Amino acid sequence: MPELRKDPITGRWVIISTDRQKRPNDFRIERSALLGPDYCPFCAGREDLTPPEVLAFRQNGDSPNGPGWDLRVVPNKFPALQVEGNLDREGEGMFDRMNGIGAHEVVIESPDHSKELATMSEMEIERVLWAFRERILDLKKDTRFRYILVFKNHGAAAGASLEHSHSQLIALPIVPDFVREEIDGARRHFEQKERCVFCDIIRQEVAAGRRVIHENADVVALAPYAPRFPFETWLLPRSHGSRFEEAPRHVYEQLARMLKTVLMRMNRALENPSYNLVIHSAPFSDRAEYYHWHVELMPKLTRTAGFEWGTGFYINPTSPEEAAQVLRAARV
Amino acid sequence: MPELRKDPITGRWVIISTDRQKRPNDFRIERSALLGPDYCPFCAGREDLTPPEVLAFRQNGDSPNGPGWDLRVVPNKFPALQVEGNLDREGEGMFDRMNGIGAHEVVIESPDHSKELATMSEMEIERVLWAFRERILDLKKDTRFRYILVFKNHGAAAGASLEHSHSQLIALPIVPDFVREEIDGARRHFEQKERCVFCDIIRQEVAAGRRVIHENADVVALAPYAPRFPFETWLLPRSHGSRFEEAPRHVYEQLARMLKTVLMRMNRALENPSYNLVIHSAPFSDRAEYYHWHVELMPKLTRTAGFEWGTGFYINPTSPEEAAQVLRAARV
Repeated sequence: MPELRKDPITGRWVIISTDRQKRPNDFRIERSALLGPDYCPFCAGREDLTPPEVLAFRQNGDSPNGPGWDLRVVPNKFPALQVEGNLDREGEGMFDRMNGIGAHEVVIESPDHSKELATMSEMEIERVLWAFRERILDLKKDTRFRYILVFKNHGAAAGASLEHSHSQLIALPIVPDFVREEIDGARRHFEQKERCVFCDIIRQEVAAGRRVIHENADVVALAPYAPRFPFETWLLPRSHGSRFEEAPRHVYEQLARMLKTVLMRMNRALENPSYNLVIHSAPFSDRAEYYHWHVELMPKLTRTAGFEWGTGFYINPTSPEEAAQVLRAARV
Repeated sequence: MPELRKDPITGRWVIISTDRQKRPNDFRIERSALLGPDYCPFCAGREDLTPPEVLAFRQNGDSPNGPGWDLRVVPNKFPALQVEGNLDREGEGMFDRMNGIGAHEVVIESPDHSKELATMSEMEIERVLWAFRERILDLKKDTRFRYILVFKNHGAAAGASLEHSHSQLIALPIVPDFVREEIDGARRHFEQKERCVFCDIIRQEVAAGRRVIHENADVVALAPYAPRFPFETWLLPRSHGSRFEEAPRHVYEQLARMLKTVLMRMNRALENPSYNLVIHSAPFSDRAEYYHWHVELMPKLTRTAGFEWGTGFYINPTSPEEAAQVLRAARV
C-alpha cells in the first residue's frame, strides 16, 4: 500500500510508492528509452493491454475497450496511489501519515502513435481538455479527495516512459505544497488589495508586452517575471476563475489554440524539447475566489544544475524577456 | 549584470544569470561530459587557470597561487552572481528585483584529481569543513549578504561540470525559499512546544532506530520520515545549534567521519552515485534559536519523473526504512 507522509518541519507531503519500483533491489538511474510503437499499449487495437477505460470519446458508438475511439482515459497500470481503501490517518509519534489513497489515470490523447499535442488539430487538443474536465468532475465526487493534479510529461527528459502522447491525472487526499504556496500568496495579495494577483500580472504584462509570448481572445501566454527554468511559460485565462473545470467552453477553445501555438513555437525555436505541463487549479475544499487557475509549461532544456535539485533555489540562465522574444519570433 | 527577481505570487527569489550561458542562442540540453584531468584547472600546478585564491591551506608556507597547497578556495570563474556593486533594490510595477550581487566561490578540496570526498581521509574531509567555516565567517562581514549557500555537486548527473572534487559557496542578499520554509516550520514548532523540531526528530528516531543509518558521538545520519528522493539522507548534529559556522571543533571531526562513512556506504550500495550535498544553516539576520543546522545529502538515482520537476510534488519509490536498512547493511 502506498503511503502519504508529511515532513514535520515544512509540512510538505510526499508519496512513498514502493510498489512502482519494478526491481526492488536495483536503485540505479533508469535510462530507459521511450517505449516506441511496436509494443505500445496506447495504440488503437491494443485496448486489452490497458485496464478497462473509465472514459472514452467514440464517434460511432463502438463498444468500450475496443477500437474506434478518439480519446481514452484508463487507470494507470502502475499507479502511484491506490483507489480502494480508507485513508487511516494516523500518527507515528510526531510524524503524520495516511494510506496512499488516490486515483491515478492516464488520458490517451489520440489513437495515433505518431501524433503529439503540438501536431494535433485544435479540436483534438480541445478534446483532451474536455476529458480533463470530465474526469475532474467525476473524481471530485469522491469526498476523500482534496486536489487533482493534471499534468503531462512529454519526452524522456521530462520523465515520460511511453512515447504515445498522453497526460495523467492524480486525485489526492491532500493539497500539494506548490498549490498551497500559490494559494497562500494569492490570498495575501487579495487581503491587501482586494484584487487577484494573477489578474494584476495579466494587466501589467499585457500593457508592457516584453514578456508576452502570444495572446488570443481568452488566453495570454507569458514568460513569468521570475521564471525558475529557461522558457518557463504560463498560459493564463484573461477572465478570472479559480478552477479549470469551471471554465466556459470558449476558454477551452482558445486554450487549445494557444497550446498548439506555443508548443509549435517551442518545437521550432527549441528543437522539439521534452516538456512538463501542469494545470494549476484551486483545491476543492476552498472557494478560493482569490485564485486564478492557469497552465504552466516547462520545456526541459538545461540539466537541473546543482542546488536547484532538492533545495528549491533556482538559477536560470535565460531571462524571460529573451525567452518571450525568441518564442514571439519563431515562425510556425 | 545578473539579477535577483521575486515571484509576486509565492515570494520565491530566483537568480537570472544570463552571463553564465556561454552560447546565448543555444538553448539545447547540455550533455557535456565531466572535464577530466587533462585540462583540469583545479589540479596542482595549474593555479594560473583559476582566479587568485581567497583562501588556501598550505603546510610549507609556499607563496599564494602556486603549488604546495592542500586545499584552495577561489572565486568561481563563471559566477552566478557578481560581487561588485550595489543591490539597487527596485520595483518594476508590481514586481521586485535587485542586482545579482553576491559572492560565488569554489572550494578545491584536494590537489589530487583522483580523490573524491568518500575516498579522502577524515582529516582531509574535516579540512573542507574548516574551509567552509572560514569563508562563511569572512563573507558574513559583508552586510549586503543574508545567507550563504554551501553545496556540492558530485558527478555529472548531479550537475557537476568538473570531475575534480570541489564544493561551492554562494553568498546571497536574500534568504532562499527552502531555508525560509524550514525556518518557518521550526519556529511554529518551537512556539507551540518550546522545543526544537530537529531535536525532537533526533530523539524519536534514535529511539526507534528504523530510519537510522549510522550514529557517532556527535552526529546522527537518518533517512528522513518523508524523503523527497530515494536515499535522501540527513546528517544531524546531536547538540542543538542554529549555525554550521558556530559548531565546536569536535562536531566537525565527527561530521567528517560521518560523511566518509555515509558516502562510502552509498558508493558501495548504490554503485558510486552522483549526489548533491547542501548545508542547511540559519540566515544571518535572525538569532533563530529554534533552528538546527544540518547537512542534506541526495544521491541522484532516479530521473526526476514528471511533476516532481517544476511543481514541488514528490513521488518517492524507496521508503526511508528500506534505504536506511540498505545503507546500514553496506559493508565498507
